[in-house]
Amino acid sequence: MESLLQNVKGTKDFMPGEEQIRTKIRNILDEVFRNYGYGPLETPILCQYDLLASKYAGGSEILKEVYQLKDQGNRDLCLRYDLTVPFCKVIGINPTLQLPFKRYEIGKVFRDGPVKTGRLREFIQCDVDVVGVKGIIAEAELMCLAFEVFKRLDMRVYIQYNNRKLLTGLLEFTGIDNNLINEVIKTMDKINKIGEDAVKEELTLKGISRDTISRIFNLLNEDFSLSDFQHSSNSSIREGIAEIKELQSYLSGLELMTKTQLNLFLARGLDIYTGTVFEVFLSDECIKSSIAGGGRYDKIIGKFLDSEQEYPAVGMSFGLDVIYTAMEMKNAAQQKSPIDLFIIPIGTQIEALKLACCLRAKGIKVEIELRNVKLKKSLDYANKQDIPYVIILGEDEMNKGSVKVKDMRKGIEEGIEIARIERFNFGTDQ
Amino acid sequence: MESLLQNVKGTKDFMPGEEQIRTKIRNILDEVFRNYGYGPLETPILCQYDLLASKYAGGSEILKEVYQLKDQGNRDLCLRYDLTVPFCKVIGINPTLQLPFKRYEIGKVFRDGPVKTGRLREFIQCDVDVVGVKGIIAEAELMCLAFEVFKRLDMRVYIQYNNRKLLTGLLEFTGIDNNLINEVIKTMDKINKIGEDAVKEELTLKGISRDTISRIFNLLNEDFSLSDFQHSSNSSIREGIAEIKELQSYLSGLELMTKTQLNLFLARGLDIYTGTVFEVFLSDECIKSSIAGGGRYDKIIGKFLDSEQEYPAVGMSFGLDVIYTAMEMKNAAQQKSPIDLFIIPIGTQIEALKLACCLRAKGIKVEIELRNVKLKKSLDYANKQDIPYVIILGEDEMNKGSVKVKDMRKGIEEGIEIARIERFNFGTDQ
Repeated sequence: MESLLQNVKGTKDFMPGEEQIRTKIRNILDEVFRNYGYGPLETPILCQYDLLASKYAGGSEILKEVYQLKDQGNRDLCLRYDLTVPFCKVIGINPTLQLPFKRYEIGKVFRDGPVKTGRLREFIQCDVDVVGVKGIIAEAELMCLAFEVFKRLDMRVYIQYNNRKLLTGLLEFTGIDNNLINEVIKTMDKINKIGEDAVKEELTLKGISRDTISRIFNLLNEDFSLSDFQHSSNSSIREGIAEIKELQSYLSGLELMTKTQLNLFLARGLDIYTGTVFEVFLSDECIKSSIAGGGRYDKIIGKFLDSEQEYPAVGMSFGLDVIYTAMEMKNAAQQKSPIDLFIIPIGTQIEALKLACCLRAKGIKVEIELRNVKLKKSLDYANKQDIPYVIILGEDEMNKGSVKVKDMRKGIEEGIEIARIERFNFGTDQ
Repeated sequence: MESLLQNVKGTKDFMPGEEQIRTKIRNILDEVFRNYGYGPLETPILCQYDLLASKYAGGSEILKEVYQLKDQGNRDLCLRYDLTVPFCKVIGINPTLQLPFKRYEIGKVFRDGPVKTGRLREFIQCDVDVVGVKGIIAEAELMCLAFEVFKRLDMRVYIQYNNRKLLTGLLEFTGIDNNLINEVIKTMDKINKIGEDAVKEELTLKGISRDTISRIFNLLNEDFSLSDFQHSSNSSIREGIAEIKELQSYLSGLELMTKTQLNLFLARGLDIYTGTVFEVFLSDECIKSSIAGGGRYDKIIGKFLDSEQEYPAVGMSFGLDVIYTAMEMKNAAQQKSPIDLFIIPIGTQIEALKLACCLRAKGIKVEIELRNVKLKKSLDYANKQDIPYVIILGEDEMNKGSVKVKDMRKGIEEGIEIARIERFNFGTDQ
């Protein structure tokens, strides 16, 4: 029996102290997404295996990490690996869906991958996407959304952005073989993480000549200017620059230029991106990797649906766990008690229930001592749980119509009429 | 490809219209649970199969409905069937956990069962439980919580309750063989659903004599009085009555007697209950079955943990889907647009983004026309989406510093200064 009592490898329980902060993050995301006109979508966790397999046809590495199972009807199922495939599926099976379609989904995804880096095999993704908009205004709006999310979370962030068309064009311009470009991009993308020297080394290992590597680094240095290339003969470069300039006109108009920066190495790994890519970083860089990111993927949905129709799309994803970690590091994730007030009835159970019901209806989080234990034990419990306020409700108090509210941190008491108690400030901040 | 584009049997997508109402229900549950002092808990969906199998050792029917899978390490896993086993597991692997432990969890569970009755194979459960409280005050508090939830949902409900000790004792008293009692209880429990005659027939099929059936129905009729039995020689009857009387003293003190009723047939199927059981029904009975329910299960956690320690526990569960259906039936689930205001920029994209950001920060749900389309097409979109207000933002309007807000339902316009627009009532109700 003993050995059964443990969590599945790569999973964990989120206990109330931590979970109430995660819930707060979720609620903020949920609220901002809706204020930005994205509607909630809930798709099943169970997926058809063949659908995923066809989507990730190129990515056998991903398929290795997909949990497979069968139902009683012997159907080949799997657990969703991300929220993008379910999103594409919803668009595919609802052909009358009005575009643009703006949706968000916050839900569990499953990856049977290595856990050594602290990665969980089951975790929550928070995705927000719009399909049906070609203009770069969609990217600008998503960046606004990201700034609003982190403002509400009281976290200072900046955004790095790039354009995959420009990046591809510039690499073509340096003379790299076309079928090596995606590999080069993947390596360059690691520059924040592993540094310039390691990138150069990895490029060498991938068969890029020293000369070409020099050309890349000479080109993409700090002196790089979009204007120098806007009349380039390479159409990818021209289109990429036009898109970046459009994005910058919005950022400038929104006074976000100082909070955003072009990073010509940024690529966001995935092959799916076709234009803008962007990532959100903490200003104090207490976490080096990005805490959210997204980009434009104009081709993937049409391809997925085997459709002639174009489905221009932009989306971004927030990492609940990394945001929580960031809050923890700056102590914003202080696990304060989930309770505002503890009522200890002394022979006044019914009155305590009544008083609590009334305060709870006002949004105050109240726990009643439900056990039949000595007062000292109850006060110990309140102390250990770090509950800020306690009321000891005896029959005397009820008769007098006033109680003493004990501030457990300051160690002081304040008398207050029961009839007025709901106006007492129990420090509820939400 | 075509055939892949469908949902897995027994699952469905919840589209934004429906999902925003489900989110509202979830948020109300979440809020009330926390106001009642229950903390959020998030447990993994992936479970060890052997843990479930040991828990449901008696219930091979349940095990048949458990989705099984393996990870890359060839571990035997499964998807959780309910939220009770994960709750027991959390108590087991956290031996220093302070009791009473009050937690709630809202999350997906999976059952590979029949779908013909409209049941989904993957659905959300909302459970709220306390472990470590012996007194019936815990049940009374959960009933208060239920009334508060449905008050906030604007649904009129009443609660039926019973006590398993009393029910078992009374059946012993009628002379039923001890090892038939649980079977008899399961059949009696169906009386609301299938009626008296069908219950009698099923009892006959289970081998209960006509005489005994008569005795049961004669005893548990409308004239039944707790007082007649409180000195019974049967200790289960005495204890059951004492518990019911304690519960009734709370209900009476809380003025809930008219909203609650004793139903001597109620049992809540599951064998796990050891005392109080209760179910919440709609007052208008537009849905016959219960929409929430719970009870006391003092033995199951200790048994599950193979522990000598007692873990008295009470909990209840809310059905998100059935609550949604009930709201739909009384038209309270009207799928109003998730958007309050649609801004159509005419060459004023940046100003539109700015205005929208500012209104969104105030909690107004704003969508901007992101496409470059004709005005008529934009207005058509707003109409089809049933968005209540529209602002057409031209350069003229920006220069004048005032806009016209179009009420799409009433077909009227109102001029308003841009600087004051955030005070306009866009009918946001939350």
